[in-house]
Amino acid sequence: MSKPTRALLSAMIRPLVEPRLPDWVEPAWFASKEEALEYAPRAEIGWFDFTQPGPMAEVARAATSLKWLNSIYAGLDFLPLDLLDERGVVITNGAGINAITIAEYVVMLMLAHAKGYREVVRAMDRREWLMDSPGKRELAGERVLLLGLGAIGSLVKTRLEGFDMEVVPVRRSGGAEGEGAALGPDEWRGRLGEFDWVVLAVPATPETDGMIGAEELAAMKSTAVLVNIARGAVVDQPALIAALEAKSIEAALLDVTTPEPLPEDHPLWSLDNAQVTMHLSGRAQTKMFQRSADRFLANLDRWHRGEPVEPRLDPGLGY
Amino acid sequence: MSKPTRALLSAMIRPLVEPRLPDWVEPAWFASKEEALEYAPRAEIGWFDFTQPGPMAEVARAATSLKWLNSIYAGLDFLPLDLLDERGVVITNGAGINAITIAEYVVMLMLAHAKGYREVVRAMDRREWLMDSPGKRELAGERVLLLGLGAIGSLVKTRLEGFDMEVVPVRRSGGAEGEGAALGPDEWRGRLGEFDWVVLAVPATPETDGMIGAEELAAMKSTAVLVNIARGAVVDQPALIAALEAKSIEAALLDVTTPEPLPEDHPLWSLDNAQVTMHLSGRAQTKMFQRSADRFLANLDRWHRGEPVEPRLDPGLGY
Repeated sequence: MSKPTRALLSAMIRPLVEPRLPDWVEPAWFASKEEALEYAPRAEIGWFDFTQPGPMAEVARAATSLKWLNSIYAGLDFLPLDLLDERGVVITNGAGINAITIAEYVVMLMLAHAKGYREVVRAMDRREWLMDSPGKRELAGERVLLLGLGAIGSLVKTRLEGFDMEVVPVRRSGGAEGEGAALGPDEWRGRLGEFDWVVLAVPATPETDGMIGAEELAAMKSTAVLVNIARGAVVDQPALIAALEAKSIEAALLDVTTPEPLPEDHPLWSLDNAQVTMHLSGRAQTKMFQRSADRFLANLDRWHRGEPVEPRLDPGLGY
Repeated sequence: MSKPTRALLSAMIRPLVEPRLPDWVEPAWFASKEEALEYAPRAEIGWFDFTQPGPMAEVARAATSLKWLNSIYAGLDFLPLDLLDERGVVITNGAGINAITIAEYVVMLMLAHAKGYREVVRAMDRREWLMDSPGKRELAGERVLLLGLGAIGSLVKTRLEGFDMEVVPVRRSGGAEGEGAALGPDEWRGRLGEFDWVVLAVPATPETDGMIGAEELAAMKSTAVLVNIARGAVVDQPALIAALEAKSIEAALLDVTTPEPLPEDHPLWSLDNAQVTMHLSGRAQTKMFQRSADRFLANLDRWHRGEPVEPRLDPGLGY
């Protein structure tokens, strides 16, 4: 029998992983940064997510024998990716782990805005029977520009198409044959005025930073609604606030903001046409750890057979 | 040229209908019940919706030459249907006119409950950044029992299937081959415990009156959610309130109640696990009159060619 492979694993995921761990893996379960740092240099496989980015990066630097790093997070730009790449570390991330609940959240936000549901909740709390709907939009027949067609974007697309919306995604490669309408990265800005909804589901990269600014907002319909479930930095927030104050777009539905948490005196809270949902979209589920553990265990089998593990993080892109 | 056909038409729909009215129709536009009653005996075609059922029934009785009656409403049980049937009057109703917005409303209510969106709205109003989602359900993978597969139910079904839910409709005929799972009218009660959501989209008839009572509620899962967008009378409301108080089901999302409006001191307002949305689902759109007018004009052409008009109301069923 061959020598077992050493794995440095967070105690957080122990209950989900240990019962199904194959016998070729020798686990070291740690509960503190100190324990992790001590074992780190010997580990070949690592899944050492912390709730804070700093300690996770520190442990990654100390893990000099590491061959494969797994994480529950999708965006790992806080890790020393260049160093890990230099060392030839394969990185699997949590891309898509939260995708289902986030896609559901997007549709909820759009429907809630369309029907004025926030006003309905307030009326319920006042025990007031409204005689007319505070929102009268139908999703059916409206057009959506979808920026980002990763795990989340793809699920958003199929869900919105179920409502008879036309969803036009933006792809690096533009429209591929037989895949319906899609716009390339240089095309969408010129077409912003054609859409009723603009949904941001792009990864956080230098390329997407501030991709929606004053010009993009000015190009949108006055009835357009911006939905951001990507990262706060994707939107130029002062420009957005100005557009909302001027009512040059109808509304912004923001799961993400800059900063997070948003301070109590921030103007976004007081704008009637902004909704702030506190980065809750990914948390509105109970299956994230289970899905992540299932995926890790399936990858362990692939690793052992010498097959590629997935999904792979691109260290050049950071997601 | 043949003699024009006299039509008694409400002034409410004049702006939408008059510009496209064919020349074989001789319209009488009326703005009061008195005007309608005066012309009623000569009309062969009638579209005389009022906001009150009483006057509409009175005009229907007076319209002794009527051959075809059209209405924007789906349920016309307030009309003298026996008399109209005896006179051989064809009746087209508004079935499906509101179906899109009502189906969208159903999905919104389900998502809002799943994610605890009502609590998110309240937190927004307090400017409080919640650190965790007050609701953690995913629609994906959950099972829906759908009572009623008419215009609304069919649209609900396709939308929920887009969320990877399993939707099992109840049909008079039960499951037909090649159409997936469906339950017959005698089957669903015994299967209630298998569903996460029970959606009521049945018409208001003596048969559906009180179809969800204490026994049906007791048979549901403790995590089941009841969604009623049919009529308040479909549910035994005191039994529902008892079930919600005992938390024997998770929640009820009620677009319809008994009575409407619900008085301010009604217990449904104060139950944390009930939501009352004031029969707004059908009103959350702006296209109802337009769609109804389009349908009437298309039917006029069919009528002139001697073809059947649709959708036909079944006077025996009242919808």
